[in-house]
Amino acid sequence: MVGNVIVGQSGGPTSVINSSLAGVYKTAKDLGAQKVYGMRHGIQGFLEKNIVDMDEKIKSDLDLELLKRTPSAFLGSCRFKLPEIDSNRELYEQIFAILEEYDIKAFFYIGGNDSMDTIMKLSDYAMLIHSPIRFMGVPKTIDNDLPVTDHTPGYGSAAKYIASVTKELIRDGLVYDMKLVTIIEIMGRNAGWLTGASVLSRCEDCEGVDLIYMPEIPFDMEAFKKKVGELFEKKKGIVIAVSEGVKTADGKYVFELADHTEFVDAFGHKQLSGTARYLADVIGQEFGCKTRAVELATLQRCAGHMTSRVDITEAYQVGGTAVKAAFEDDETGKMVILKRVSSDPYICTTDLYDVHKVANIEKKVPLEWITEEGTNVSEEMANYIRPLIQAELSPIMITGQPRHIVIDRA
Amino acid sequence: MVGNVIVGQSGGPTSVINSSLAGVYKTAKDLGAQKVYGMRHGIQGFLEKNIVDMDEKIKSDLDLELLKRTPSAFLGSCRFKLPEIDSNRELYEQIFAILEEYDIKAFFYIGGNDSMDTIMKLSDYAMLIHSPIRFMGVPKTIDNDLPVTDHTPGYGSAAKYIASVTKELIRDGLVYDMKLVTIIEIMGRNAGWLTGASVLSRCEDCEGVDLIYMPEIPFDMEAFKKKVGELFEKKKGIVIAVSEGVKTADGKYVFELADHTEFVDAFGHKQLSGTARYLADVIGQEFGCKTRAVELATLQRCAGHMTSRVDITEAYQVGGTAVKAAFEDDETGKMVILKRVSSDPYICTTDLYDVHKVANIEKKVPLEWITEEGTNVSEEMANYIRPLIQAELSPIMITGQPRHIVIDRA
Repeated sequence: MVGNVIVGQSGGPTSVINSSLAGVYKTAKDLGAQKVYGMRHGIQGFLEKNIVDMDEKIKSDLDLELLKRTPSAFLGSCRFKLPEIDSNRELYEQIFAILEEYDIKAFFYIGGNDSMDTIMKLSDYAMLIHSPIRFMGVPKTIDNDLPVTDHTPGYGSAAKYIASVTKELIRDGLVYDMKLVTIIEIMGRNAGWLTGASVLSRCEDCEGVDLIYMPEIPFDMEAFKKKVGELFEKKKGIVIAVSEGVKTADGKYVFELADHTEFVDAFGHKQLSGTARYLADVIGQEFGCKTRAVELATLQRCAGHMTSRVDITEAYQVGGTAVKAAFEDDETGKMVILKRVSSDPYICTTDLYDVHKVANIEKKVPLEWITEEGTNVSEEMANYIRPLIQAELSPIMITGQPRHIVIDRA
Repeated sequence: MVGNVIVGQSGGPTSVINSSLAGVYKTAKDLGAQKVYGMRHGIQGFLEKNIVDMDEKIKSDLDLELLKRTPSAFLGSCRFKLPEIDSNRELYEQIFAILEEYDIKAFFYIGGNDSMDTIMKLSDYAMLIHSPIRFMGVPKTIDNDLPVTDHTPGYGSAAKYIASVTKELIRDGLVYDMKLVTIIEIMGRNAGWLTGASVLSRCEDCEGVDLIYMPEIPFDMEAFKKKVGELFEKKKGIVIAVSEGVKTADGKYVFELADHTEFVDAFGHKQLSGTARYLADVIGQEFGCKTRAVELATLQRCAGHMTSRVDITEAYQVGGTAVKAAFEDDETGKMVILKRVSSDPYICTTDLYDVHKVANIEKKVPLEWITEEGTNVSEEMANYIRPLIQAELSPIMITGQPRHIVIDRA
């Protein structure tokens, strides 16, 4: 294929989304693309023609290597959902006019659910107007909630970070000879993939978290207090992992139960934070013990200093696979998926899947992976996650800190 | 010196407090100590004769190396302040009876301000009763608030963690093309040493945090809002580092200004958390922008996965120096200090100092290192901290996670 390509990043960033960008860029260049353009801030920047020539940003092998190891979205990201084609045809005409202006033959979008919706609509519109431009989705999300694919790039590194710092927090939590409950709040509005990764803290040198609460199971405050009481009969230091999005049986977020605080942001959106703080307060009052609330917050998605080499490699692979499929097989309207061949030894390949069957669908943790009481996860889930956190790709450390590559450098 | 020694850890743990324990243990063995005992949970456990033989816990070079790289206090810690000698002489008699029972010639205590108070009182009592037992303090605290010593072991690694994750949070915070204020809450009740370390995020590949607020300077809410407003005229993504302990001119903690929340724990203690959340809410309401509050919380003191090699090495050295001074020079009632010979190239040695002139004294950040408006720190402070975060000692990674050594292993 001769011509130019464009690549964008969308949705919440991860530690390895730039490795996918590196995979797209490198493979496109290797396969003979003339220009590889990058859109700043996804489709939102694209509409403003905020477009850069990647060759001017990535000038050496060192730059490419730094890109792989730089967290957050190098090109910038957006949260922008395209309207239905029928409701705003002008917008699509505008997009395709820009694509034509830049002589673009293939469009790659690295993102999660919403981003796959973008790929779906653009490839639909291309079909409608008989455009030959290919549109390919490259999966990315720490949430691991995309269907069909065995897992999503970004998840393994977030899981590794969560498992590792949970081990460290457990060590810290056991240091005093006193009752102490540590509650770790982990991302996940509707799915417990990230919170479930805390199960990996249970290993040869660590007893692991005592309880795991995920959004798949309704949260029962009385049962929770009872559980903690039972644990106190056996031990002093208790560590609990909880998803930010846990809800009671009647659909209320747990943090909403706190009557003294309104966690509402400037736009009136309920803020999904404060779950750990609230639960810690409940436990402190119930048991008269010291408590600690730790929110992993943004740290769990930007910890480029703690990435999984498996994850960062797969992130690169899915980028490359998307380009190869578009260039060599003329594919469009597909998302790259990861297919696990075997867990031990871990073997995983890439494949393609119709983006229509992926977009806007959320994959939750299978209920059979959650223990009967809903307070822990099975060894099967641990075995699913463990291969994804293996091995490291350390940052390049300069003057004692991880070096990053930034797009607007001097 | 022939005989036995004992070592304990006290106060808040750090990433490298076990490296000091390794230094005490290894040096004592090398110098011919028969038994090296460890007290569980500091002087509190000692009083219950909760004492272990370190040889049974550290059995190989691998164990010793793991010990250096395991965060939190291997022996457990306590927060226990000895009473004045006059007010409870029986307690001191009890302590010295236990020391005699175990035939202990030297007592090493790794800790901060309160722990040095313990060393002071025990060495005073020894003098009083003409006991030949030596009592030596080994400095440790992420807070860096011990006087006389150039810095304290533990600070460098915490500073490295703070500087590095701040860089990552800045990358993440700039990802969207929208107004976003990220407020990072960093430990420090009375001193801004840790918060000031966020200045190191300002380096070749990063513009650094925009504002730094520390407890040394009274916090002015109106000036704060004005500053943020000025920054918004120049940029969209703003990142602010703030000490948990910032107070207004009338001595109120900033988080206490939040009228809708009472951050009081089960014991009625005011909880020093919520400063970032509260300031983020204020900014969100003032500017109608998205905000994010990130509390580094316990993570900043237990991040064994991100230690400074300089720090971990010095932690080992101060442990060894304490033992050598007691064994070879018959020293007692002293704390080991670090003396900086030069910042660039960084050269640092150890020395001893009278523990009476160290205990219970808190060192704050010099006011001349804080910029005139009180919203940032000087290059001089950056130059002071930078050598302390240099180089890495990575954890030994097993199945994708940092391996630790734990005292009660199977």
